[in-house]
Amino acid sequence: MRAFANLRDSQFLYRTAEQLENDKHEASDEDIATIQLFEDLTERPADVENPDVVLLRRMKQETCVCVEGHVGRAKGNIPWRLEIVVERITVLNNAEDLVSQMRGTKDWDPKYRYLQLRSFQFQRALAMRSKVATLIRNVFEDHRFIEVETPLLFRSTPEGAREFLVPSRTDAGKMYALPQSPQQYKQLLMASGVHRYYQFAKCFRDEDLRRDRQPEFTQVDLEMSFAKALDVQSVVESILVRLWKEIKGIELQLPIKRLRYIEALSRYGIDKPDLRSDMEIFDLSEFATSKTDPDYPVFEILVFHAQNSNFPAAVTAPDGYPTLRVPLSHQVRLSKEESSKWLSRCVAEFDLKLVSDLETTASEIKKKYDITDGDVIYACTRQRVPFENPTPLGRQRLHLMQETMSLSDRAAAPLWVIDFPLFTPAESGRIVNGYVEFDYSRLVATHHPFTMPSIDSLPALFAAVEDQSSQVDPRTIIGQHYDIVVNGVEVGGGSTRIHDSSLQRFVLSRILRVPGIRVQLEPGETEPDNPFTHLLNALTMACPPHAGLALGFDRLCAMLNGSDSIRDVIAFPKTQTGADPLVGSPSRVTDEQLGVYNVQLKKC
Amino acid sequence: MRAFANLRDSQFLYRTAEQLENDKHEASDEDIATIQLFEDLTERPADVENPDVVLLRRMKQETCVCVEGHVGRAKGNIPWRLEIVVERITVLNNAEDLVSQMRGTKDWDPKYRYLQLRSFQFQRALAMRSKVATLIRNVFEDHRFIEVETPLLFRSTPEGAREFLVPSRTDAGKMYALPQSPQQYKQLLMASGVHRYYQFAKCFRDEDLRRDRQPEFTQVDLEMSFAKALDVQSVVESILVRLWKEIKGIELQLPIKRLRYIEALSRYGIDKPDLRSDMEIFDLSEFATSKTDPDYPVFEILVFHAQNSNFPAAVTAPDGYPTLRVPLSHQVRLSKEESSKWLSRCVAEFDLKLVSDLETTASEIKKKYDITDGDVIYACTRQRVPFENPTPLGRQRLHLMQETMSLSDRAAAPLWVIDFPLFTPAESGRIVNGYVEFDYSRLVATHHPFTMPSIDSLPALFAAVEDQSSQVDPRTIIGQHYDIVVNGVEVGGGSTRIHDSSLQRFVLSRILRVPGIRVQLEPGETEPDNPFTHLLNALTMACPPHAGLALGFDRLCAMLNGSDSIRDVIAFPKTQTGADPLVGSPSRVTDEQLGVYNVQLKKC
Repeated sequence: MRAFANLRDSQFLYRTAEQLENDKHEASDEDIATIQLFEDLTERPADVENPDVVLLRRMKQETCVCVEGHVGRAKGNIPWRLEIVVERITVLNNAEDLVSQMRGTKDWDPKYRYLQLRSFQFQRALAMRSKVATLIRNVFEDHRFIEVETPLLFRSTPEGAREFLVPSRTDAGKMYALPQSPQQYKQLLMASGVHRYYQFAKCFRDEDLRRDRQPEFTQVDLEMSFAKALDVQSVVESILVRLWKEIKGIELQLPIKRLRYIEALSRYGIDKPDLRSDMEIFDLSEFATSKTDPDYPVFEILVFHAQNSNFPAAVTAPDGYPTLRVPLSHQVRLSKEESSKWLSRCVAEFDLKLVSDLETTASEIKKKYDITDGDVIYACTRQRVPFENPTPLGRQRLHLMQETMSLSDRAAAPLWVIDFPLFTPAESGRIVNGYVEFDYSRLVATHHPFTMPSIDSLPALFAAVEDQSSQVDPRTIIGQHYDIVVNGVEVGGGSTRIHDSSLQRFVLSRILRVPGIRVQLEPGETEPDNPFTHLLNALTMACPPHAGLALGFDRLCAMLNGSDSIRDVIAFPKTQTGADPLVGSPSRVTDEQLGVYNVQLKKC
Repeated sequence: MRAFANLRDSQFLYRTAEQLENDKHEASDEDIATIQLFEDLTERPADVENPDVVLLRRMKQETCVCVEGHVGRAKGNIPWRLEIVVERITVLNNAEDLVSQMRGTKDWDPKYRYLQLRSFQFQRALAMRSKVATLIRNVFEDHRFIEVETPLLFRSTPEGAREFLVPSRTDAGKMYALPQSPQQYKQLLMASGVHRYYQFAKCFRDEDLRRDRQPEFTQVDLEMSFAKALDVQSVVESILVRLWKEIKGIELQLPIKRLRYIEALSRYGIDKPDLRSDMEIFDLSEFATSKTDPDYPVFEILVFHAQNSNFPAAVTAPDGYPTLRVPLSHQVRLSKEESSKWLSRCVAEFDLKLVSDLETTASEIKKKYDITDGDVIYACTRQRVPFENPTPLGRQRLHLMQETMSLSDRAAAPLWVIDFPLFTPAESGRIVNGYVEFDYSRLVATHHPFTMPSIDSLPALFAAVEDQSSQVDPRTIIGQHYDIVVNGVEVGGGSTRIHDSSLQRFVLSRILRVPGIRVQLEPGETEPDNPFTHLLNALTMACPPHAGLALGFDRLCAMLNGSDSIRDVIAFPKTQTGADPLVGSPSRVTDEQLGVYNVQLKKC
């Protein structure tokens, strides 16, 4: 008579480092994390019923026990298996039936997240996240950064996304807002004489969570005074090198490649290109331009070399929202009557003006871009400085990569995207000819209103100060912003900030039109009360030049964990509707509780 | 012609470690952090006006500059001073006049906190705080803890202090609450198979900030599964030893002294005794008890040996709230007619019943407690298990320490206070004979409802289950709670938690009377919806036994910094009214913003 059970040892507490190293060659981590409880009764008199064995047999899955016995290698032909020959077993806490019903179900009820977290993959993910944080902190310490905590009870500012509000009890009618990022406080820290700041910062954005986002998330936030882009980028590169080496065993090559925004958009059709494929988009302006659409004059193609792949779906387009533009796709046949057919379709579709006749142009393009029989050509138009991001071909490129490549996270293709447009035209809200219409008279900050314009862009900006009637063309103003992108994921973004109060005041008042901010103050006048008074004041008090960046910690961890979703690396994530079914948040509170905070539910 | 200016170098960026070590013997850190800018024009032709020097002379205080020149030891008789012989100086950002007006003012306008933070003492405090965090993290890593982040958008629970509410946009009428601590989530982590958890957790309590408190604060939170008090205490002791050694250069002696709550209250009159003085309170129950007041039967004295000190204010009492009890004080004269006078005053004041006649009793007390001529005796009564905390004599003891000792933070007297009463009678709200009246029929959790009763207390608890009509006497139930106290400051508190769902359900329903929780469920019945469903469910699913603790990080840093106030170690603290005048939070928001969150301001 024998009895068996499995004991979880997710932390490998019962193996030496040497054992662990050896065992790992033969088994998965998850196997190694399982210790077999074993009781052999054959040597005992048959009439003695061992109460422990009875317990072991009756015990429900997941029961929490104290086992006494000898830990050793299991007998038999599984060399890596540890077993405990049970001498005594005590139940510390029982498990309800529900637990065993839950095991094996793929879609866990989020109400029982803690059961899901017990699985090996989540234990590893949580431990990995903690290790990633430690590695990042080590790099910051090497670079003499200090961690400073900034307040979470902040104020509402017209800066970006929708903000969670927190009513004040003592100051009736007023609200705190939870910060979207520590951006303003960290700039105030630069004005405070802090030399190099970092923080693992909790941030809050109340967006509709249609993508893999969370209403609360963690940002690795850094800022450096007397610093510029390269200083910040160098620290971030040290972090990435350390992480990919320690977590993935991959040596990243430095310096990390740099692409200008316009280059990223024209060659890859997106501002966060996935460079694990060298597939590129070709700007065909030298051969053809679109005649009729001044917003989308650039004609471009993406060539998929079909002979490299048996891709049945090569001519399909990715799913998109109904309002997104779809590129034309055409599989090329190089018979005489077919070889220019793709181009004639494009001429019709995009109303192209060719520099030469159809046949010659098609032939030259074929030669220049090495187009052969069976290749699939995707064609579309784009803006000269594309604010449509990704472009139709950018989307198509990603779709092709996903469908035809085995995209491994064992490869890492990091990249800096630099020289972003500082401002983006607001979307008018209308769709014209299937295209999103932009309103160039209303500008929004591409990232945030504190990004320094490039030195080359200053004359164009200042021209607009001189001539109050002129509009700033957003296509002419480049910002000192930089994104770090790995495998097509924007892992972080940063910028050199405006440290001059007049320039900041100009951007806020004249370009972004924040109410309550004046272009210039009278001599001796103090900054009137407005949502950015604190920042403008600090800049007038000799705030040093500064630059910084923030890494999306959840996304970074998900990537290092090989997970598609950040939910895999967050212990207690919120659902798509912002709820936590585990604890039942949000929940109703009493009118009395609300009354203390001077608010009441809105009457419908 | 010469020109001078001072340059701040708070991070000692321009000194080698060796220089720094040598220089520190001769000057303060603040001196060393100042580099002198120096320009000597005497060697130059008098008619050449050096534009940099003109700049240096005209420059306002706090101007942000780029200086080019040679860094070296200053000439002259100040050996530790570094100077830069200026070759070129460029203004990077100007300072407004206001800056120099602010310098030297003692009470800084909190609107310009960043100017105050530039001072050396704050730079050091921020850097120290960051270092303390690193040291603590190192200890956790040595002990194989992992850091797990828990949500800040939590739900309202009837657990303790008033909670900040965050209205939900998508789930109309419902609210998140900001957590008072990660207590419930960390217990859920124990149910999740996390072995050893820690977190630098943001916590929120909306209390009236009359003491040195902040509405948001940071807690070093830890929890261990399969652990008990000693396991937790051992980790915390490692942290304290590391911190006091690295930050203060003090070797703490292990094991740290332990005092039971009842001992702390009876010997020191408070549950967080400052052991930098060995002054003790004496329980005189063997000589006298109070006849008339059943709530305060214990008669006790504190003897201040006046010959040890020229203490003019020895007979004064500390300031207290009007409702606090004040001890009787009496300076002893040992002439025949005077030697028992103090006791006769006490007999009258406290209606004492003496075990012997007045003279004999006074003489025996004098002998036992070594009372001599000129000593001051403070006398009062207390409860047998004192819920009045501090007691009048406890307050008097602290007052005497503050008035007569030079209390240095170079001494560290750490202490565990253990065996707290698990429940505290609610205050009735009435004052009777100058005493706070307790209502023993209404109990609140002394710390929180999740603390495990001591094994010895279980029979008394379970007796109350059997006999539904009986009341639990809070004086009989001891909880497995432990506070770590240093120099009279409660630095942290922890406990072994309840891991048995029936016990937890009993405490919540029968003792704390949380609505919606039943003492027992029918077999097979699932936990109905209530504010603690998640926790009760998790306990039924084989949550292991666990224990944990939280350190008040702000207070710990203030103590290590030698600061009286936590505001010294928080970059951007809130005022007493919960405001941040720097950024102007909280602030008004539009009705539209509120409407999105389904609330409106309460109509008065």
